[in-house]
Amino acid sequence: MKRSLLYTIIGILAIAVIALAVMQFTGGGDNQSTAPAADVEGLGDAAAALVAERGLTSENVYAALKTYMPSGQHDPYVMFASGGHSGQLHVIGVPSMRILRTIAVFAPEPWQGYGYGEKSQEAMFEEGDVLGAGVRWGDTHHPALSETGGRYDGDFIFINDKAQARVGVVDLRDFETKQLVKNPIAMNDHGGTFVTPDTEWVIEGGQYAAPPGGAYAPISDYNDEYRGMITFWKFDREQGRILMDESFAMELPPYWQDLCDSGKLVSEGWIFCNSFNTERATGGAGSGEDAVPFESGASQNDMDYLHVIDLNKVIDVAANNENKVNDFNYISLETAVDENLFYFIPEPKSPHGIDVAPKGDFMVVSGKLDPHVTIYSFDKIMTAIKDQDWTPDEYGIPVLNFDSVMEAQVELGLGPLHTQFDNKGYAYTSLYLDSAVARWTLGGDYDHADEAWTLIDKESIHYNVGHIAAVEGDTVEPAGNFLVALNKWSVDRFNNVGPLLPQNLQLIDISGEGESLQLLYDMPMGIGEPHYAQIIKAERLHPVQVYPEVGWNPHEWAVDENATLAGQERIERDGKNVEVWMTSIRSHFTPEHVEINQGDHVTWHITNIEQAVDAVHGFAMPAYNINLSIEPGETATVEFDANKDGVFSFYCTEFCSALHLEMTGYLLIKPNVDTGK
Amino acid sequence: MKRSLLYTIIGILAIAVIALAVMQFTGGGDNQSTAPAADVEGLGDAAAALVAERGLTSENVYAALKTYMPSGQHDPYVMFASGGHSGQLHVIGVPSMRILRTIAVFAPEPWQGYGYGEKSQEAMFEEGDVLGAGVRWGDTHHPALSETGGRYDGDFIFINDKAQARVGVVDLRDFETKQLVKNPIAMNDHGGTFVTPDTEWVIEGGQYAAPPGGAYAPISDYNDEYRGMITFWKFDREQGRILMDESFAMELPPYWQDLCDSGKLVSEGWIFCNSFNTERATGGAGSGEDAVPFESGASQNDMDYLHVIDLNKVIDVAANNENKVNDFNYISLETAVDENLFYFIPEPKSPHGIDVAPKGDFMVVSGKLDPHVTIYSFDKIMTAIKDQDWTPDEYGIPVLNFDSVMEAQVELGLGPLHTQFDNKGYAYTSLYLDSAVARWTLGGDYDHADEAWTLIDKESIHYNVGHIAAVEGDTVEPAGNFLVALNKWSVDRFNNVGPLLPQNLQLIDISGEGESLQLLYDMPMGIGEPHYAQIIKAERLHPVQVYPEVGWNPHEWAVDENATLAGQERIERDGKNVEVWMTSIRSHFTPEHVEINQGDHVTWHITNIEQAVDAVHGFAMPAYNINLSIEPGETATVEFDANKDGVFSFYCTEFCSALHLEMTGYLLIKPNVDTGK
Repeated sequence: MKRSLLYTIIGILAIAVIALAVMQFTGGGDNQSTAPAADVEGLGDAAAALVAERGLTSENVYAALKTYMPSGQHDPYVMFASGGHSGQLHVIGVPSMRILRTIAVFAPEPWQGYGYGEKSQEAMFEEGDVLGAGVRWGDTHHPALSETGGRYDGDFIFINDKAQARVGVVDLRDFETKQLVKNPIAMNDHGGTFVTPDTEWVIEGGQYAAPPGGAYAPISDYNDEYRGMITFWKFDREQGRILMDESFAMELPPYWQDLCDSGKLVSEGWIFCNSFNTERATGGAGSGEDAVPFESGASQNDMDYLHVIDLNKVIDVAANNENKVNDFNYISLETAVDENLFYFIPEPKSPHGIDVAPKGDFMVVSGKLDPHVTIYSFDKIMTAIKDQDWTPDEYGIPVLNFDSVMEAQVELGLGPLHTQFDNKGYAYTSLYLDSAVARWTLGGDYDHADEAWTLIDKESIHYNVGHIAAVEGDTVEPAGNFLVALNKWSVDRFNNVGPLLPQNLQLIDISGEGESLQLLYDMPMGIGEPHYAQIIKAERLHPVQVYPEVGWNPHEWAVDENATLAGQERIERDGKNVEVWMTSIRSHFTPEHVEINQGDHVTWHITNIEQAVDAVHGFAMPAYNINLSIEPGETATVEFDANKDGVFSFYCTEFCSALHLEMTGYLLIKPNVDTGK
Repeated sequence: MKRSLLYTIIGILAIAVIALAVMQFTGGGDNQSTAPAADVEGLGDAAAALVAERGLTSENVYAALKTYMPSGQHDPYVMFASGGHSGQLHVIGVPSMRILRTIAVFAPEPWQGYGYGEKSQEAMFEEGDVLGAGVRWGDTHHPALSETGGRYDGDFIFINDKAQARVGVVDLRDFETKQLVKNPIAMNDHGGTFVTPDTEWVIEGGQYAAPPGGAYAPISDYNDEYRGMITFWKFDREQGRILMDESFAMELPPYWQDLCDSGKLVSEGWIFCNSFNTERATGGAGSGEDAVPFESGASQNDMDYLHVIDLNKVIDVAANNENKVNDFNYISLETAVDENLFYFIPEPKSPHGIDVAPKGDFMVVSGKLDPHVTIYSFDKIMTAIKDQDWTPDEYGIPVLNFDSVMEAQVELGLGPLHTQFDNKGYAYTSLYLDSAVARWTLGGDYDHADEAWTLIDKESIHYNVGHIAAVEGDTVEPAGNFLVALNKWSVDRFNNVGPLLPQNLQLIDISGEGESLQLLYDMPMGIGEPHYAQIIKAERLHPVQVYPEVGWNPHEWAVDENATLAGQERIERDGKNVEVWMTSIRSHFTPEHVEINQGDHVTWHITNIEQAVDAVHGFAMPAYNINLSIEPGETATVEFDANKDGVFSFYCTEFCSALHLEMTGYLLIKPNVDTGK
């Protein structure tokens, strides 16, 4: 049989399996028809009538009462979900599953005045740009809340752009993006971002191998010229910035490194990253009869490699490393091998998730083409390293003996991907092909260790779950209570809104013991495709609602040099340069008239002198692609060339008062007489 | 007393009133502390325990059971909300208040692959551009669902951009934007969009007066050179497009025309638009001691003018009109007056909303600085016109006698803005300063006419309500049931997410009679500031979920000339022009390798050959600002100059299968040897 035909058959079979899985849950998901109606006695007449009219079950009533948030009551938990290729972060209340706001990171968003002329933002976009291309989107994957001692501290959140290997830094004092960093070595990533337990380092794992630094090399030179990598971004908590000069990357074999997780507590100081395509398939579907598509070529090996990285050693080597690519500190594979900076552990099969248990003692790997999760013991790994219980691979990298470091394997079902933890000694793993979330028990020093490594319950989801997020479920102190399944397909769950369907984020009650998992709520997500999410206790967040002083520059977190108080408004001209210092307050701008000449270069500062919560003013300037959202106390600056003459009504876009519509003014641009206009 | 001081005092007083109103509702909004707990007997143990633990009231239990949507059940109503300066439309299920998806209109949105290189979209953006400035945002205000016989038909939705006077056309067959039209006369608008009862015309009202066509004129020439306007866009339902050549605008005095509504049934053929700043204030705060800010200057008159426009006559005159501005058919004010194309009716005071009652018999105006709504009788207006019961104003425009056409005034409270209707003879008006929604009775031929023009109930909202939307509440056949208050401030309602707060969309139960209004649900809106919304019965919507044929071009609604089926994939070169015909299917692209040279011009067609619901594939191309979302059956095209050499991994951004990560390929761009690189 020709290979191309073989792979076509494999592809068709894979699609059939997926289609069957989807059909199964399409039919089986609606439990309304068979479940008994809720007992209505004592609900009150109106509520009892509703239960009857709507045919609500007891489970529905429980779920409604569990998730409903009366007016003015706040959600106890807050979820930060990446937006996938929306390029943003989404902030969601749990358990009400209401979107509290979007934080714009890699893509412009005019409601929050992001990417429409504000000068600090423009500088930030330029710093994070990709080969000067003006890239204005990202594929956000793994948000990482900053941690102190392995617990979320509510100070910062980091997020990667898979498409272009970038990292964004969001300051949770005001929920605004403060920095975009482009990786100078890699063109894409996946396993980012993850933080070390005290957020000294932000880890960015790799994805598709490529020549380091972005050079061209033919695909035929894959083994020699293409490389994988991992990047260690040094974070300065005081400045709230990643320090490019103190950051570095480490070269890895041209496997496709994927997700990472930091060791914690006993395993602090180690980083774990999995990989796939250790086959080093180079694809080529459509290039001829023998060409093997990646999906087949990268799925041949029974084992791929978990990368076990000695962070402290890596930091030491980096400190004295002189090799640079694109001016960025880059530890070569040769150095990494010579200095024993990392080890491999075989892991089955095309793994996706690597998740470290709360006590740091176990590493859980899900091989997406293997029905088990595989659990490694950190103790055993350390022993194997100490005992040199390994075989070097062709690059000289020590491959630890699988049987020596493996603690357990638990059969869960088809397509296991990611694992989270709770406070009761349970682990939860998403099953993509089963469309389910599995609860199973940890061994070692956890509750329920008496029935260790055992599948306990499975809850069907709808459909195709990727990541899952439990409350603080990837920290040293998971809270339990709730888990959200981030499902990729919704199929029939919501009203038909055309060919582009929302995702379905399903809330699951994990507060009980044993076989008690209960689906609570379906949340359509039609503003992005969240990849991963973290859920923090709301009490850990303490953002400002009004900036500390009037004239605040959020990017510098200090009073702006162009802060303007009432009475200080003015327009100054220096040759063709016009500078405006404006204030906004309910319900007028001062000045209301700005008269300039075509060809002038304009720098325009606006200070929102309000100090009341929610008293935001917008600033819209037509025809110049300028739109700002200026929060109470903020000073914002735009700069533009007045190349279009005419009469332009600038105005406040935030409905700020009863006389909001009157909050406007005229920019009058006289035609340039030089051009005879 | 100097005028500037006077206006400063007025300003301070206005802020104080607003602050007090906010404080009042901040304190009074939380009814949890005083209301009795719900009767828990019969709920089932788990639910009863929840009610006790959470301190839920009977009202809370009713609201939870009324709004909760079990997995797989669909919302009976769908709300289309503008996004304000987000530039988009948001689709929300009612009563669950879940965001089903966002429809990108004026701003790029990478999740739906909107504005990131797709060729038809780029052409659309260019057609709707503003003075060649590459404007990529809008301030969407009033969505208008297409109507047949005054009822929503679920075919199209229109939306304006206030900032730049543009109109977007969205096709509800696939919930995608198909056209952006720039108004050639006006630089901004407000009162758009509104449709005539059979959607022959899309109405775009005005806002801030300016010289027609965008020319410069000094502000001192305001009375002579600045003008108001209204635009009539001709809509071709067959093509699904606005026809620029058959559309026209009509010049109006330099008042600030605002919202409009179409007459319906008995009043079909008439258009009603209100206005403010009939003072013709020109602002100038900050320009010297005598300068009067707009907020004061535009709030002096006790009466402004309702514009009553004879649409059929206007259409006739437009057909023979030869006056053009910027090549656009433009009826001068002189012609309009000579031909009696419109009339004025005095309306108190700085009005905002104008809303025609379901039978077309009454016009309801809310003067935002007057505590009443004022109701005009269409019969009386027709009689006054017939009897020439008018006085001409200084432009020669007939001003009808207020007492002759006024039917009733109902005192509702502070800051009335907008009115909607139900199926029981009630009208609902938002009260901005009161932070409340009022229910009152219509007279004439409606239920409850026995107690006509009477305030019945007021429900507090939180806070500062702008528009309201009841189910089909602006059509000839309102449904009743639910009403959503689009509140501008949320202050304390939700978790603190920094200085930029979400808005609060509050769902109110209007299904009962009399004083039965009940607040059901608080929905944070942190992805835009919805200005107006319409709520349609879900059964009227029939979008496709998969495009009709493989290779579909959604913009042309036909098979694309570059549709590519499996086996037809290819790469062709003609000099420096490279053209790629690619297919995507779970889980690979064909071809997976594309090798070109730096300096090539690339045209790249991708056909998603899937035919399963939800089987969307993305296409991300790093470093070239390209990101597509290709729905099942769709063919999309991008075009770019390959000016950056290197190795670029393109990949599918939609998590489409278990082997989704393997759905990738290499674009290999050889350095240009000519440049010596």
